[in-house]
Amino acid sequence: MRVGSIESAMSPAELRNAARKGEFSGMTSGLAAGYVQCNLVVLPQEHAADFAAFCHRNPKPCPLLATSPAPGDFTLPELGSDIDVRRDIPLYRRWEAGTLVGEPLDLVDAWQDNHVAFALGCSFSFEEALIADGLEVRNISEGVNVPMYRTDQPCRPAGVFSGNLVVSMRPMKPRDAIRAIQICTRFPSVHGAPVHFGDPAQIGISNLSMPDYGDRVSIADDEIPVFWACGVTPQAALENAQLPLAFTHAPGHMLVTDQTNAGLALL
Amino acid sequence: MRVGSIESAMSPAELRNAARKGEFSGMTSGLAAGYVQCNLVVLPQEHAADFAAFCHRNPKPCPLLATSPAPGDFTLPELGSDIDVRRDIPLYRRWEAGTLVGEPLDLVDAWQDNHVAFALGCSFSFEEALIADGLEVRNISEGVNVPMYRTDQPCRPAGVFSGNLVVSMRPMKPRDAIRAIQICTRFPSVHGAPVHFGDPAQIGISNLSMPDYGDRVSIADDEIPVFWACGVTPQAALENAQLPLAFTHAPGHMLVTDQTNAGLALL
Repeated sequence: MRVGSIESAMSPAELRNAARKGEFSGMTSGLAAGYVQCNLVVLPQEHAADFAAFCHRNPKPCPLLATSPAPGDFTLPELGSDIDVRRDIPLYRRWEAGTLVGEPLDLVDAWQDNHVAFALGCSFSFEEALIADGLEVRNISEGVNVPMYRTDQPCRPAGVFSGNLVVSMRPMKPRDAIRAIQICTRFPSVHGAPVHFGDPAQIGISNLSMPDYGDRVSIADDEIPVFWACGVTPQAALENAQLPLAFTHAPGHMLVTDQTNAGLALL
Repeated sequence: MRVGSIESAMSPAELRNAARKGEFSGMTSGLAAGYVQCNLVVLPQEHAADFAAFCHRNPKPCPLLATSPAPGDFTLPELGSDIDVRRDIPLYRRWEAGTLVGEPLDLVDAWQDNHVAFALGCSFSFEEALIADGLEVRNISEGVNVPMYRTDQPCRPAGVFSGNLVVSMRPMKPRDAIRAIQICTRFPSVHGAPVHFGDPAQIGISNLSMPDYGDRVSIADDEIPVFWACGVTPQAALENAQLPLAFTHAPGHMLVTDQTNAGLALL
């Protein structure tokens, strides 16, 4: 998905402002290079503690970067001084009883005094670190969404939230995979090191050519698939929970923050 | 190879002293737990600079921990206050023109004023770290020497020293291999992270059941072979160089130092 040169040059605050004004509703991959982009989940307060517990029990798929300062508060001051989670994401998803019912451009009318927002780390951050190190990230070089797969590996449940791990996959030569494991280990707050590589059947994936989310990518004979815990995992848990009302970002339409990717590095 | 309880309880200095007195000539695996054990290479001074360069150009197979303070000096004060490299290793190997000609118990008579000793890091250190983390190290659990293989991956040459990388192999489940990569990354001075995993043919190994050095180990269906740069690499380079006279430790009979394995950790 191509974006215009105007968006490419925008700062995080400018991008959020463009989304806020309704001037930008596109995907954010490749924009505001160097800055952390986040998955968003919005829930009523009564389920917030359970969802936070789910994140803490499953930190690799659900790396929690920030939550609303208080129920109903739509700022996220830890991630940017002027963030309004109701309007600053280019495209949202509305969920009712675990079913996707719409993709609104903002949550201004839908926002309620008991809503709590959760910002979770996203693979864009570690993909940037991999590319900076000279590694190829296949979904980026092929210009598609990363392939994602449901596994048979259960998350640790918390309250109404449960479900299996969802993983993203990037094919690599073994030598590059070793380097990728080293690099991603430095970034635990954006999914961290891979959870598996090699035989997909070992984690319950039957066919790499048919991802459950995203697009397929090519895999060369001398490459092995490398699997990372994926931010779609909490969305799947949200669907399972069948809450009367919840919101997320639309896939690929992330919250662009003022925090640098480099600042997430453990060392 | 079993060792007696007396040796098991010995400190590094006590072990070196037992070797020095000729009371101990056995293998050192599992002894002086927690302390660094080293590969030894002894060369005439005229080749010392080249060998040091070979180590520096190939730090994964040849992690140089210490060298003689001066030609002819048989101490290694960086690794222990009382080390005598002529006598403190349980068993040595004598090489003439690249050919093994004997396994002496000491180098006292053979030592010359132009001899320089090189102490290189050894896999025992990272194996200890893997086991401390709860991982299984197959060669240890099966009580054999680690399987080692010649690869088709050339080292960077230096003077008369050249040759292909030799690797050791430990089979692991992918999840454990990821953890092993993380742990070994902390220990660059004892071979560091693995150099390859998966298909042995990619690095020129045709048959895992027939190691070039050491013993074969079993590999379960859900495991993949993980390959580390190996301290036999410099020995192979030494054979290629066909020096008139050189010495090494005998395999498994290492120099036990006063430096702790934990102290080698990068972080």
